[in-house]
Amino acid sequence: MTFRAHTIAGVLAQTIPGGAALHEPEIGGAEKARVDECLRSGWVSTAGPFVERFEDALAQYTGANHAIACVNGTAALHACLLLAGTRPGDEVIIPSLTFVATANAVAYCGATPHFADSDEDTLGLDPAKLANHLEDIGHITKGNCFNRRSGNRIAAVVCMHAFGHAADLDRLAETCRHYKLPLIEDAAESLGSFYKGRHTGLDGVLSALSFNGNKIVTSGGGGAILTGGAELAEKARHLTTTAKKPHPWMFEHDQVGFNYRLPNINAALGLAQMERLEDFLTRKRRLAMRYKDAFAGVEGVRFFEEPEDRRSNYWLNVLLLERECAQHRDAALKAANEQGFMARPAWTPMHMLDMHKDCARMNLDTAEDIFARLINIPSSPALVS
Amino acid sequence: MTFRAHTIAGVLAQTIPGGAALHEPEIGGAEKARVDECLRSGWVSTAGPFVERFEDALAQYTGANHAIACVNGTAALHACLLLAGTRPGDEVIIPSLTFVATANAVAYCGATPHFADSDEDTLGLDPAKLANHLEDIGHITKGNCFNRRSGNRIAAVVCMHAFGHAADLDRLAETCRHYKLPLIEDAAESLGSFYKGRHTGLDGVLSALSFNGNKIVTSGGGGAILTGGAELAEKARHLTTTAKKPHPWMFEHDQVGFNYRLPNINAALGLAQMERLEDFLTRKRRLAMRYKDAFAGVEGVRFFEEPEDRRSNYWLNVLLLERECAQHRDAALKAANEQGFMARPAWTPMHMLDMHKDCARMNLDTAEDIFARLINIPSSPALVS
Repeated sequence: MTFRAHTIAGVLAQTIPGGAALHEPEIGGAEKARVDECLRSGWVSTAGPFVERFEDALAQYTGANHAIACVNGTAALHACLLLAGTRPGDEVIIPSLTFVATANAVAYCGATPHFADSDEDTLGLDPAKLANHLEDIGHITKGNCFNRRSGNRIAAVVCMHAFGHAADLDRLAETCRHYKLPLIEDAAESLGSFYKGRHTGLDGVLSALSFNGNKIVTSGGGGAILTGGAELAEKARHLTTTAKKPHPWMFEHDQVGFNYRLPNINAALGLAQMERLEDFLTRKRRLAMRYKDAFAGVEGVRFFEEPEDRRSNYWLNVLLLERECAQHRDAALKAANEQGFMARPAWTPMHMLDMHKDCARMNLDTAEDIFARLINIPSSPALVS
Repeated sequence: MTFRAHTIAGVLAQTIPGGAALHEPEIGGAEKARVDECLRSGWVSTAGPFVERFEDALAQYTGANHAIACVNGTAALHACLLLAGTRPGDEVIIPSLTFVATANAVAYCGATPHFADSDEDTLGLDPAKLANHLEDIGHITKGNCFNRRSGNRIAAVVCMHAFGHAADLDRLAETCRHYKLPLIEDAAESLGSFYKGRHTGLDGVLSALSFNGNKIVTSGGGGAILTGGAELAEKARHLTTTAKKPHPWMFEHDQVGFNYRLPNINAALGLAQMERLEDFLTRKRRLAMRYKDAFAGVEGVRFFEEPEDRRSNYWLNVLLLERECAQHRDAALKAANEQGFMARPAWTPMHMLDMHKDCARMNLDTAEDIFARLINIPSSPALVS
C-alpha cells in the first residue's frame, strides 16, 4: 500500500472504528467512591489523608523511597530543579524535543535551557551526542560543570521519557556522573514504564511525574516528585508548602517557597486511578499491539515499539513516517482529525520557538527530523476492552 | 475583668463551646452532587464546563468583567504581577503585614518586595504613609516610577485585604495613579467583602482571589484572577495555559507560560461552594457579632470591626490586644490552643523574615505593632447556625 494523506486515517478507521480523542481518562465508580469519601471527611485541601495515601501508592508502585504529591507536573519539575541546586544564570541541559513544561521549569529558576538532541531509537536524549557535546563544551571547575562557550554553570541534565518510552538511563547517568551533573528525570509521561526492570524516575537524583487529565493516571491536575534521598524528600515537602517553619501557630518561612502541594480531593481521585493502573497498562499495551499489527503492512509508516530492555506504558502511541513521506505529515494529520481521530505531531522542538531560539544548543538534526515525521494517534485505554 | 493569659480562652469557651479549628470548609450534599456530575462527565482536568461556570459565578457575584480560574491564589497573584508588567530587577510595593504568598509572587517574577506599612483602622496598606513614602523616594521618568534610592523601577503596588477587611482603595488608587503605578489587589481573603458598595478586587488593574481550604469558599485548592479589561483577561488565559498558540494539533508557544489553570473537578467543588456563599456570609457575620458582644466587656482586648463604608466577610475574626497586654499574646495563644480553640497571631511581617530583611522598606512601626497585638480566633461558618 502506497502512503497517501488518507492512509493513516484509513487504518485508524479499521482499528478503532468511530473516532477517538488522543487520551481520555476513565472515571468510574471507584473514583466516585474515593472522592465522595474525601468530600464527606471535609478535608478537601492541601492537607489530608488521601495525599499521604496517594504518595504511598506512588512510592510503592514505582519503588521510589519518597513521593511528594504536587499541584501538577510542571510544579514538580520546577521543584526538582531548585532542589538540585539550579540558580539564576545557570544553564540546564534538556532535550529540545519535549513538552514546553520542561523548558518552562528551567526558565522559572531564572536559568536558561541548553538544548540537546534526541535519539530515534528511544525518542529521548541521545547519550552519545550528549557525551560528545559535553566533551566539546563542558569544563569542570571546583566540582561544577561549566559551559566553556557561554561561561555559565550547567546545573543539571533533564532527560524526558517521551510518550512513555524510557530514555537510555544507564548511559545518560554515566555521562552525568563524569561531568558532575545531577540527572533529573522528567517522567511526566512514563508512569508504568520501566528501564531494565526499574521503574523510570529512579535513576535521577529527583524525578517528576504528572497526573494531568491526558496522562495514564489522572488526579484532575497533579504531579509528584520522586526521590531516593530522605533529606531531599524533606526539603521537597518544605519547599512546596511555602517553606513554613513548623510551629503550632506562628507563620514563619525560611526561604522563598511555593504553594505546590496537591489538594486532598485531587489525591483521592489519583489514588482511585492508581488502583486501576495495571488494568490501564494492560489495555494500553493491547491497543499498541493492535496498532503494530494494523500498521505492519503499511508502506511509508512505522509503528514505534518500546526499545530493547524497556517496558513502555505506550502513553501516546507513535507513528514515524519514512523520510520520503514526511511531506505528507500535515495532510495525514488533517485527514485523521477530520475523520474524528485526534492525531497530532510531536511538540515543536523548543529551539524552534521564538523565546528559546538564542539558547545554547548542540546539533539538533534528529530532534528536527523526528518532529517532521512523528504522529501521535489515539491511545486511551478505553479503546480496547 | 483584667486581662490575663486565660481571658481569651475563657470567652471563647462561653461563646463557641467545645473547641474549634480556625476556619473549616463546609462540604455537603450540594458539593457532592456537583463533583459527582463532574466525575460522570469524565472531564476532570484543566478543560471542562465547570471551569467556565465557576468563572461566570465569580464574575457575576463580584461584578468583575472577567474571572480566570487558577490552580491557587499564589498562582493567580503571580500572573497578575506578570500581566501588570513586573520584570526581573523591579521592586513591587506590598504590605509587610501579609501572608507570605504576596512576597513570594513578587520573587517569582525576579523582582523584590518593597515593604509598606499598614493602617490600624483597616489592617491594610496605610495610604497616607504610602503617599509620603513615594513622595520621598518615588521618581517618575518616561511614565515609570523609580525608587530614587535603589535606582530600581517600581512595577506595581499590591494591597491586601487582610482577614477580609477592605483596604482604603480610593486613596490607594489615587496615589497609584499619581505615581503611574498599577494597583493590584491581593483579594485572597476578601471574597464577599465590599468597599463603598463595590466588591473588593474591582479597583485594581488585576486582582487575585484564593479558594484554599481555609477560605470562605474552597475548591480544594484554587484561585482566580479578576480584571475589567478584555485584553488583559485574554492575556491571562493565554499566560496561564502554557502560552500555547491556538491550533487544532500543533504545539507552539509564544512565551514562557504557566500551567496555572484550575482543574474542572476543583471548579465543580468551587461552583457548589459559590452557590452557598451568601449563607456562609450570613453565618460568619452572626458569629462576628457574637464575638463583638462577648468581648465588649473584656478589658485589654478589642474585637476588630469592619471599617466604615466597608462590609467585611469577617474571614478570620481579629482581636487586638491593648498595648499593655501585648506581652501576654503568646500566653493567650497557648491557653486558647491548649483548650482546643485554634488561635494564631498575624503572619510574621515579611521584613522580619531572614530572606527579606534587606529589601527596600518604609518605616514599618504599625505592621510590627499590629503583629505584636493581633490574635485570630475560630471563624468557621459552622460555628453558628
